[in-house]
Amino acid sequence: MASIFPSRRVRRTPFSSGVEAAGVEGYTVYNHMLLPTVFESLQADCVHLKQHVQVWDVACERQVSIKGPDALRLMKLISPRDMDRMADDQCYYVPTVDHRGGMLNDPVAVKLAADHYWLSLADGDLLQFALGIAIARGFDVEIEEPDVSPLAVQGPKADDLMARVFGDAVRDIRFFRYKRLAFQGVELVVARSGWSKQGGFEIYVEGSELGMPLWNALFAAGEDLNVRAGCPNNIERVESGLLSYGNDMTRENTPYECGLGKFCNSPEDYIGKAALAEQAKNGPARQIRALVIGGDIPPCQDAWPLLADGRRVGQVGSAIHSPEFGVNVAIGMVDRSHWAPGSTMEVETPDGMRPVTVREGFWR
Amino acid sequence: MASIFPSRRVRRTPFSSGVEAAGVEGYTVYNHMLLPTVFESLQADCVHLKQHVQVWDVACERQVSIKGPDALRLMKLISPRDMDRMADDQCYYVPTVDHRGGMLNDPVAVKLAADHYWLSLADGDLLQFALGIAIARGFDVEIEEPDVSPLAVQGPKADDLMARVFGDAVRDIRFFRYKRLAFQGVELVVARSGWSKQGGFEIYVEGSELGMPLWNALFAAGEDLNVRAGCPNNIERVESGLLSYGNDMTRENTPYECGLGKFCNSPEDYIGKAALAEQAKNGPARQIRALVIGGDIPPCQDAWPLLADGRRVGQVGSAIHSPEFGVNVAIGMVDRSHWAPGSTMEVETPDGMRPVTVREGFWR
Repeated sequence: MASIFPSRRVRRTPFSSGVEAAGVEGYTVYNHMLLPTVFESLQADCVHLKQHVQVWDVACERQVSIKGPDALRLMKLISPRDMDRMADDQCYYVPTVDHRGGMLNDPVAVKLAADHYWLSLADGDLLQFALGIAIARGFDVEIEEPDVSPLAVQGPKADDLMARVFGDAVRDIRFFRYKRLAFQGVELVVARSGWSKQGGFEIYVEGSELGMPLWNALFAAGEDLNVRAGCPNNIERVESGLLSYGNDMTRENTPYECGLGKFCNSPEDYIGKAALAEQAKNGPARQIRALVIGGDIPPCQDAWPLLADGRRVGQVGSAIHSPEFGVNVAIGMVDRSHWAPGSTMEVETPDGMRPVTVREGFWR
Repeated sequence: MASIFPSRRVRRTPFSSGVEAAGVEGYTVYNHMLLPTVFESLQADCVHLKQHVQVWDVACERQVSIKGPDALRLMKLISPRDMDRMADDQCYYVPTVDHRGGMLNDPVAVKLAADHYWLSLADGDLLQFALGIAIARGFDVEIEEPDVSPLAVQGPKADDLMARVFGDAVRDIRFFRYKRLAFQGVELVVARSGWSKQGGFEIYVEGSELGMPLWNALFAAGEDLNVRAGCPNNIERVESGLLSYGNDMTRENTPYECGLGKFCNSPEDYIGKAALAEQAKNGPARQIRALVIGGDIPPCQDAWPLLADGRRVGQVGSAIHSPEFGVNVAIGMVDRSHWAPGSTMEVETPDGMRPVTVREGFWR
């Protein structure tokens, strides 16, 4: 496979030197920034993640900082979720949509103050959407990408490792809540969150100069915990049903199609609300499902069509072999006619047709 | 160097199978899509481009289609350039800016009809900016990314190759103008443009299914012209002073700083106009310059600080050795105090300090 050409535009992160020293083997580009994808191998990385603890360079989860007197007003326009219910230390998963209800991103919103939010982005310049609205409406708000680079600590030993560096206070952080905890005298937002179901934290490292000192402190503290450099693992995340914007859903899809209808509870007149009203009432015509694909499959680089009796009934956006479950695990968008658990159909891969069965749910 | 991890999110193009068969050695990711960067070697690709003709997969120059009764109204808001002067067959280079005059992208606008424009993007989701403004203002306009993938034909023999496939009409296309020419019965926009100074065309391939037939037709027609698969060449484009958004300028920069002040001629009250008024009158405090860097230099992956007497006087965003000119060619943003031709300073590279001299202009 061809390698990534070096340029300033594909940005390195505050942790890149650590990632390279740890022997990164694969990258992707996410929000104009390098995101590691493989260290030893997808399989070995996955096994280690489920047993020990890993430190992930997820600096590419760039923040959109929305700050000023109209910050909440803007958030209420772009969030289908009820912002008034958000606690002061809360992180909110927010599917953001356009005027037709098509998804533009699915960031995690972090409430820093009544007039200050971060949106921790999936891959896409949602900053430009927020900026366009704020400018057109004349909102009194600053919209910037701050020097904040998330570092994730994931795996069953994450609490132990984090407690050694940030103190036992980390153990009391609830899911999708955060505390401000000091590292080298600087208070950082530390949230219980992350793109695996193995448990762990995301540290919002504010100030690039803190990146490698924190990286090194975590590795020094965790030697006996078998800490390793890792990254979002494509096997674990498909097993866990963690959706990826751009892979499993795009602007072609609504939150209801993605099974995210429960996050569309805002009483405000947010952008897209009217367009989503019909799906809110009657449900979508297609929806995300956990799928098992039989046979051998190649890497999933395109949307693979799902077919039943020669008719298209959906598509697969992510698929990979799971050594733990002994099957090819997949995430698909499936028409209502074929989304019931146990439904069978076929998927057209570049290597030919493969049998598909709909599962009751994801693997964890 | 680590390789790119396969996923649907990093999209393949209608030409990817041709690119792979031609032996692509390096990729970058641009607008969530693969962009080839190297075939034989940067040096060999550059020599060939200057002598023969190349076919480039630049599908990643994604289009923002703006269509509807309010299309021109929206264009006038986001374009510093006078849209009323645009001819029906014209392509306009348009630096787009935010309310402070900071650059958001530098697309080429293509006028398809009085109520229909494409913006052929640099790397960044300007679609989201246009969409945010249109939604907030309630404009009657459709904003979509259509199935349009540019294919460039570049090099001194480009006219000859294109004439064999599209007919001699291509020879009459003026710079940054286009004609609609048929391929396999489908009319395509063919413009005299492209990201080199070796001459050539960009074909806006509308309909992915036409991609490989057109690719193959160009190679079949050009065998005796020594046609090869190529891509934007980082040596040639720096020699030519072709700016790269994300490398040479970002939202931190204004069009005036980028030497693009001549494109800010709109009489309308476009977004950012007030903020740019001072620079329009007095000029910017720093500006893009062609630079020569002495000694050996590593790949330029970060902004390298420019220093004079220990004081920061700018930065370098692109730098590479030019075999043709026998020096390291570079593009920098330099403070007024040091931007005069012949000025000398130093640049801090990861391999140490190197001497720098400001040039009168780029190499071609």
